[in-house]
Amino acid sequence: MVEIAILGYGVVGSGVAEVIRRNHDSIKRRAGKEIRVKKILDIRDFPDSPDRELITKDPDEVFSDPSISVVVETIGGTGAAREFTQRALEAGKHVVTSNKELVAAYGPQLLNLAREKGVYYLFEASVGGGIPIIRPLARCLAANELYEITGVLNGTTNYILTKMEKENMDFEEALKEAQRNGYAEANPAADVEGHDACRKIAILSSVAYNEFVDYREIYTEGISNISAADISYARAMESSIKLVAFSRKTPKGVLARVTPALVPKGHPLYNVEGVFNGIMVKGNAVGETMFFGQGAGKLPTASAVVADVIDVVKHDGSGIGFLTMGEKAGRLVDINEDTGRYFVRLKSKDLSKTRELVLKLYGDVKQVEPTGAPGAGGGYGVQNEFAFVTPVAQELEHMQKLSDILQAGSVFEAAAKIRVLDK
Amino acid sequence: MVEIAILGYGVVGSGVAEVIRRNHDSIKRRAGKEIRVKKILDIRDFPDSPDRELITKDPDEVFSDPSISVVVETIGGTGAAREFTQRALEAGKHVVTSNKELVAAYGPQLLNLAREKGVYYLFEASVGGGIPIIRPLARCLAANELYEITGVLNGTTNYILTKMEKENMDFEEALKEAQRNGYAEANPAADVEGHDACRKIAILSSVAYNEFVDYREIYTEGISNISAADISYARAMESSIKLVAFSRKTPKGVLARVTPALVPKGHPLYNVEGVFNGIMVKGNAVGETMFFGQGAGKLPTASAVVADVIDVVKHDGSGIGFLTMGEKAGRLVDINEDTGRYFVRLKSKDLSKTRELVLKLYGDVKQVEPTGAPGAGGGYGVQNEFAFVTPVAQELEHMQKLSDILQAGSVFEAAAKIRVLDK
Repeated sequence: MVEIAILGYGVVGSGVAEVIRRNHDSIKRRAGKEIRVKKILDIRDFPDSPDRELITKDPDEVFSDPSISVVVETIGGTGAAREFTQRALEAGKHVVTSNKELVAAYGPQLLNLAREKGVYYLFEASVGGGIPIIRPLARCLAANELYEITGVLNGTTNYILTKMEKENMDFEEALKEAQRNGYAEANPAADVEGHDACRKIAILSSVAYNEFVDYREIYTEGISNISAADISYARAMESSIKLVAFSRKTPKGVLARVTPALVPKGHPLYNVEGVFNGIMVKGNAVGETMFFGQGAGKLPTASAVVADVIDVVKHDGSGIGFLTMGEKAGRLVDINEDTGRYFVRLKSKDLSKTRELVLKLYGDVKQVEPTGAPGAGGGYGVQNEFAFVTPVAQELEHMQKLSDILQAGSVFEAAAKIRVLDK
Repeated sequence: MVEIAILGYGVVGSGVAEVIRRNHDSIKRRAGKEIRVKKILDIRDFPDSPDRELITKDPDEVFSDPSISVVVETIGGTGAAREFTQRALEAGKHVVTSNKELVAAYGPQLLNLAREKGVYYLFEASVGGGIPIIRPLARCLAANELYEITGVLNGTTNYILTKMEKENMDFEEALKEAQRNGYAEANPAADVEGHDACRKIAILSSVAYNEFVDYREIYTEGISNISAADISYARAMESSIKLVAFSRKTPKGVLARVTPALVPKGHPLYNVEGVFNGIMVKGNAVGETMFFGQGAGKLPTASAVVADVIDVVKHDGSGIGFLTMGEKAGRLVDINEDTGRYFVRLKSKDLSKTRELVLKLYGDVKQVEPTGAPGAGGGYGVQNEFAFVTPVAQELEHMQKLSDILQAGSVFEAAAKIRVLDK
């Protein structure tokens, strides 16, 4: 029998206890040993919980108990979670976590400490909820040079954008609906501003390229500026707007960004809707693979944590093979050197002058008209807009042209500039 | 350094040698040791191959060489492949394979033999080409009770059906195109009749449910009866026809089938086109996950083989955890007890009588009219058809009703009876 402790009895922590209880027999068969939760550390009381007998407020009951060999950290954040993770590793206990903040910020150090102590630090649940992705990157695709990752990694923003698209809601309405359904926090900034997706693409990239990608250096743009009118234009282009996290290994370093993007119909990520996540990975032998599933939620995330626990139990003392995220922070490519296409909406005082200017600057681009929503072309106030998709160019060139347009006088605002995702 | 041998220098075998050469450095880093191909066993000559120096016709050079610790079997079939696999395992060598015929027929025995000898028998590449699927089922989703698998598992049939759909080809044309492009064999029966998909769903189900599912007992129907008219009707229903392999764990045993099916838009498998594969897995904690990628091809499949080799090298002597496919053959649910909906096309001598009869037997079903193809409604000779989707019912009831219709006299043929895939 293997005894484990859970740190933090929140949504995921209580889910871990539930999965271990519910799938007791099959977990025992797969791990080769029975797995039992011995202690749960939390400062709160849970008088009605089925696990109330196991809950303690005293960290020593976990860290000084030699019979506890695996610690599950589901506290979140980089405060107590970091301290307890270090303490557990130093005490020679394996640590399994769903904490993306901690892994994104201190992953390499914690992995080093684990290696020194001969124990594992595993974090399958930190990205993609229940979707197997860390292990596939590190192991199943190990024969490849992985060079590109494109993902819809945040369920909250995807839920909001899907609501806007399918039910013609505007951003504020959809956000409120997400909050009512428990898919968005009261303070939604971490999701809506892209910070969550940013940490996740940093973790995936570090594991895939074996080069630490610091999330603080990734260009990140959220979805709070996406309007119902943008969605209506996207529909006209048979595209869907999603918050897309992207990274590519290049000879100059890793290029990474998190931005809203128009995902065209036919792209594997086009159908990733609602709270689902999709992660597309390219490798030099396997070509393109995609992983899809519920990117968050109590039981999916808990099942990923428990899969890591099973892996540890099965391999205790022998070697799963340590994960690596690279030793030191790699150089990120300057986002101004990025290339791509944009969908641009220009609010115009004089449409024929604007059209002329756009054609002069960008060549033969086609005007896009919004469709498909009630009142489109009217209700969204897009009457005096010239909207189009630019050719592929470098970021700097895009900025220069847009600045030229705004200075020319016939345009008083660029109402949108949204990346177009190419396959 | 670890030395390996490759048995069979065909498409996948030569791909394995190529991937090991090409990604030498990253493979070494991930495996922790250098991996070198020492011998390649094949009865043919390959005077122009970069690997020609390694090729031998003498099995003893492989099996009697104690320095070779891992054997890659890419011969295929259940003849020499089986004999050599047994010989390798008995000599204490790990075996990694892409051979679905052998795994589907003798997987449990070979896994037992491997366990006895303390070595591994791994077969990630036997299903889904480069898509990580066996390891995710056995390990990443280990915390779940897995209960359902739905997959587009055969790239050849999917290529043919996609061609029929996108380019309005008929079956024979699309098959010839697949053969010209190397996606179908001269004798295409194994793919077209569903035997390949059948073996693959048997392997996946055995691993997921830990209960051996004998492929010989799975109800299997191919795609050779799918016509351009069917595709045209499917389009009218916003669906795509695919060869779908399905299995579900039920209290009565495993229900499994391979049949063409109408996959509705919005279903995760709807967008799996061309030679791609998609595999949807449901578990009691993770919910629904999907894996997508190139289901065949030299380098994708080879990369899955090499990932298994890396896993073996990393864990030599310690324990990846043996795979299991169940000890003995489980009972399959009688296909007549299966329930579902069908799309049915009735060739009628008297449309109004047929309509009356159908409404009487099935209740208020809607007639479907084919659209979207040049000449549809005319060119495909569907003028005198009554086509509709049945309500959900048991297989036996479906058969009874169809027999009643045919006996009533107004219908001279059921031109199609295609399962409708529900989510």
